Amino acid sequence: MWTLPATVHLMEVGPRDGLQIEPTLLTTSQKLELLEAIAEAGVTEIEVGSFVNPKAVPQMADSEAVFAQLRRRPGVTYRGLWLNPRGLDRAVATGKVDLEGRLQLTASEAFVKRNTNRSIEETFADIPDWIARYGNAGVAPDCVAVMAAFGCNFEGAVPVARVVGLVARAEGMLVEAGSALRHATLADTMGWATPDRVRRMIGALRERWPGLAIRLHLHDTRGTAMANALAALEMGVREFDGSIGGLGGCPFAGHKGAAGNICTEDLAHLCEEMGIATGLDLPALVRAAQLAESMLGHPLPGKVMKGGLLPRRVAA
Amino acid sequence: MWTLPATVHLMEVGPRDGLQIEPTLLTTSQKLELLEAIAEAGVTEIEVGSFVNPKAVPQMADSEAVFAQLRRRPGVTYRGLWLNPRGLDRAVATGKVDLEGRLQLTASEAFVKRNTNRSIEETFADIPDWIARYGNAGVAPDCVAVMAAFGCNFEGAVPVARVVGLVARAEGMLVEAGSALRHATLADTMGWATPDRVRRMIGALRERWPGLAIRLHLHDTRGTAMANALAALEMGVREFDGSIGGLGGCPFAGHKGAAGNICTEDLAHLCEEMGIATGLDLPALVRAAQLAESMLGHPLPGKVMKGGLLPRRVAA
Repeated sequence: MWTLPATVHLMEVGPRDGLQIEPTLLTTSQKLELLEAIAEAGVTEIEVGSFVNPKAVPQMADSEAVFAQLRRRPGVTYRGLWLNPRGLDRAVATGKVDLEGRLQLTASEAFVKRNTNRSIEETFADIPDWIARYGNAGVAPDCVAVMAAFGCNFEGAVPVARVVGLVARAEGMLVEAGSALRHATLADTMGWATPDRVRRMIGALRERWPGLAIRLHLHDTRGTAMANALAALEMGVREFDGSIGGLGGCPFAGHKGAAGNICTEDLAHLCEEMGIATGLDLPALVRAAQLAESMLGHPLPGKVMKGGLLPRRVAA
Repeated sequence: MWTLPATVHLMEVGPRDGLQIEPTLLTTSQKLELLEAIAEAGVTEIEVGSFVNPKAVPQMADSEAVFAQLRRRPGVTYRGLWLNPRGLDRAVATGKVDLEGRLQLTASEAFVKRNTNRSIEETFADIPDWIARYGNAGVAPDCVAVMAAFGCNFEGAVPVARVVGLVARAEGMLVEAGSALRHATLADTMGWATPDRVRRMIGALRERWPGLAIRLHLHDTRGTAMANALAALEMGVREFDGSIGGLGGCPFAGHKGAAGNICTEDLAHLCEEMGIATGLDLPALVRAAQLAESMLGHPLPGKVMKGGLLPRRVAA
């Protein structure tokens, strides 16, 4: 009746997307402890930090140090984020970042201007340069990420056709450069996705690119993230970003506004309870979320970390 | 592809199920103000309070006073909760409670003993007396509510067949007494439901009782409530309980454990965004949640009240 994938891959973005909004700056050694706890739970892909302007995002100022001191575990991919060539150079210079050839697009003209002071058209004009830079770094450009893919607080709902058009145009540039489109990440940056929009969007992408690996980056801004994840799972999506404890944009410590990323352990619990293997150790994941909570000194919005795992899982 | 109902009915249980766990006792006039704000948002069924032992639930000690001073709005049904004959007598004595002929069952032997110090069998033995009492109060006994319908922290997952069996046995007793089974409420008291369990449970009930009005009372203990609601909506369920702000068992004020009821305005937002009419004024519902938050003096877990409604709804 409903088709669910047998397995799901969860990338942990808490150490980057989750922490960046937190006013409490974690020390490098706290971050390393947290990364260790996350890897201990069986997470195989972790966004460790970002290479952005430390004045704009002080929490990420020590990303080089974190990567330098990171005790890498076999089988774990350690990601970093960059938004401009200088950031990519910094990531490459660490020699420790597992690079990904990602082209970053935004589906809202209003948002991309606020976020990067550039237009969508200017973003596309940069793509040949990004492709060349990835080539120089020895990584295949084959991934497109679309921010604000479902809607934008400044512009409204984003039509499916616009996202398909953006991805198609980027694909054309990848192909022209001798690469191919293999991965797409749709980010619901401002919490506009609903299950029906997720289905239409994923359906349109699947229709055009049957073999494309689609990842969802969901925010729980309006409480729809878990319902959206369910809809996506039923559409065969097998990759999600998440943050332990629901880190990111936490509304519980004088932060203005929105909730954070979908909570990794809550999503993992939902998947496991529906028979979708995550490969994760749920109690260890909860411990990682509790560690983050104790480091930050305020409650995180994750539910399982408060409500508890089902008894049989605790015992298991 | 997915069938969703055109409309949905949301009962607000925040003033009862939501407040009862709160250590801050609201005054009668605060409760009246909150009830007024909820009704102002277009809610047509509100659980105002309970008639239980005030020593056990001090927050509900003034339920008679609340009902006595309540400014009733036309078209709004004002409910009360009782768990024993003394409670029903108190509710009837107010002359203000919109009575419902509800038989309260529990699907877990371990939980019913902890909660009421009685066995499931003893609960059934009481049913003829309840039917007689409802008859005396002039209300048709036609509703069965099943607590812990999906699982129990003390006993584990609840099989679908057990719930069907409980409802069928209660129906037999209703029919024998000249009434009928018209409504069933399934309460996920301890947050064990998942979308697949919801589908199996609703499917089994629909199979046996095609015309039965099914209501879900979801708790977000493990973050699955919105995904469960989505699954239920797709199974044609059109009635849900919810609490403004996600009141009830809030983990953010030194409370031990679990999150509360599914958040009314978050569920209403999800429904409206998917084209399911709630009849509710979402901005007014958010204001009611914010009022509850300010009265209680700690953040509530609701997301839309922090993340904001989508701009077009705020403008509307």
